Amino acid sequence: MAIDLTEETITAAVQGTFAGATDARLRELFVSLVQHLHDFARETRLTSEEWFTAVDFLERVGHLSSPTRQEFVLLSDILGLSVLVDRINHAHSSATESTLLGPFYTEGRPRAENGADISGGVTGMPLFFSGAVVDTEGRPVADAHVDTWHSDGEGFYDVQQADRLNGETAMRALLTTDADGRFWFRSIVPRYYPVPTDGPCGEIIHAAGRSPVRPGHIHFRLHANDYESLVTMLFRDDDPYLERDAVFGVKSSLVAEFLQHGAGETAPDGTEMSEPFQTVEWTFALAPDRR
Amino acid sequence: MAIDLTEETITAAVQGTFAGATDARLRELFVSLVQHLHDFARETRLTSEEWFTAVDFLERVGHLSSPTRQEFVLLSDILGLSVLVDRINHAHSSATESTLLGPFYTEGRPRAENGADISGGVTGMPLFFSGAVVDTEGRPVADAHVDTWHSDGEGFYDVQQADRLNGETAMRALLTTDADGRFWFRSIVPRYYPVPTDGPCGEIIHAAGRSPVRPGHIHFRLHANDYESLVTMLFRDDDPYLERDAVFGVKSSLVAEFLQHGAGETAPDGTEMSEPFQTVEWTFALAPDRR
Repeated sequence: MAIDLTEETITAAVQGTFAGATDARLRELFVSLVQHLHDFARETRLTSEEWFTAVDFLERVGHLSSPTRQEFVLLSDILGLSVLVDRINHAHSSATESTLLGPFYTEGRPRAENGADISGGVTGMPLFFSGAVVDTEGRPVADAHVDTWHSDGEGFYDVQQADRLNGETAMRALLTTDADGRFWFRSIVPRYYPVPTDGPCGEIIHAAGRSPVRPGHIHFRLHANDYESLVTMLFRDDDPYLERDAVFGVKSSLVAEFLQHGAGETAPDGTEMSEPFQTVEWTFALAPDRR
Repeated sequence: MAIDLTEETITAAVQGTFAGATDARLRELFVSLVQHLHDFARETRLTSEEWFTAVDFLERVGHLSSPTRQEFVLLSDILGLSVLVDRINHAHSSATESTLLGPFYTEGRPRAENGADISGGVTGMPLFFSGAVVDTEGRPVADAHVDTWHSDGEGFYDVQQADRLNGETAMRALLTTDADGRFWFRSIVPRYYPVPTDGPCGEIIHAAGRSPVRPGHIHFRLHANDYESLVTMLFRDDDPYLERDAVFGVKSSLVAEFLQHGAGETAPDGTEMSEPFQTVEWTFALAPDRR
């Protein structure tokens, strides 16, 4: 520490204040963070007005953030940080590929029995999902917890239509695999949608002239004893936005066939359907827990 | 944009989404920001848990931030960014040196006449401040607006003792220089103090084993037509924390003599004082507005 710090001397001085941290990892993270934060300001010759704008922006992101509106997660998503962190931590695996969590996961979701209709009464084309959870050698994983959540046919999640749903959850549930590692549910078909652009992140998207649209998908978060947790999503194979995801999360290994069926056909649960519907089948492979 | 982005390809893909920005400066800022943000994650091999911790941290900083509790400003201060941005933008000048704004500036401050007691009734050793504002050639600047704010003798600002003060402002005012460029006021002597450590920024300070203390000082923010605005502060020359400021802002050119006087001496405003008091004289030089 010293006085009269200059553009050239301040970075080492700030980094030096972390020398006394008892947690070596914390020291490593802040030394690198300070280096990059300062290099960014020096390289761009950041002005005082831009600094004020950034502080105000971050305050507004914080004020908007809530358990059902994860604006900081969205900021990480649109800057590609979420997918990068996923790639750093799950680069090589014979398990199902992971991808970003996204801003619409919520802790408060109902448990559902296999076969349940989890649409919460939201109307749309019926979807029958048949899933299996296996290990990397194909053996079934029983009692796995499977979180799923998705948008409706207009691209909206339940938390975005809380007024209409009286705050009830819809199109999200926590399922459990049976003895054969299987889980299944009925819901409605999701569609592509824009990430929320009515907040601070929308200002970045608009200023950059970027598309805010994500291709249609169903989220999954899987937990099972002795296996690594998996956060992933399945994308519609017929989606027009597959190659220009606003948050960079599409992987070809996660593109799923949404099979179209006509009225009069029989659904996987034996229901004779009076309207068109879609079916999806998918097997998720979990990696063994290395910790 | 593409699918199957990797740790190696994602940065260019994200930067490419800013190519359509009509504002070239915005494009420059985000291309650099994305580069450094991604380099930080790659270099540190940032884990998913650390990413969650960071998102949660930033949300809490945002929720705590208000017009009277500028936690994002404090975060910038303790990471040295505030002083760095100041140095980038005010490196070479024959004017009075600038330094960081700090988290305790507020828009809602009363105007005061020269000579007024701005202590707001907070008790402490009386301080008489005699200031002058000049240009870089020493000519007086009349009608300059001079914001000043400072802590009390225990190191607390008015916004930190809103309960005791019933929300009234104290130890802050907006003064105006007279025809000779002079301004003067009475208040109380400030002391060194810790930056607020009861919020998220305190977690960083504690984890790093850093001192949270700032040496005692008086803030000034000066505005005058045809001159560059100046944000600065004057530090007590007898302060034990001068060389270890928690936010890196001390400059030797801004260390001022706080002259001690005994009971029975006459104050600059002619008052015969029945108690000890201090006096400070300072001349602020403003640079011409280059815009």
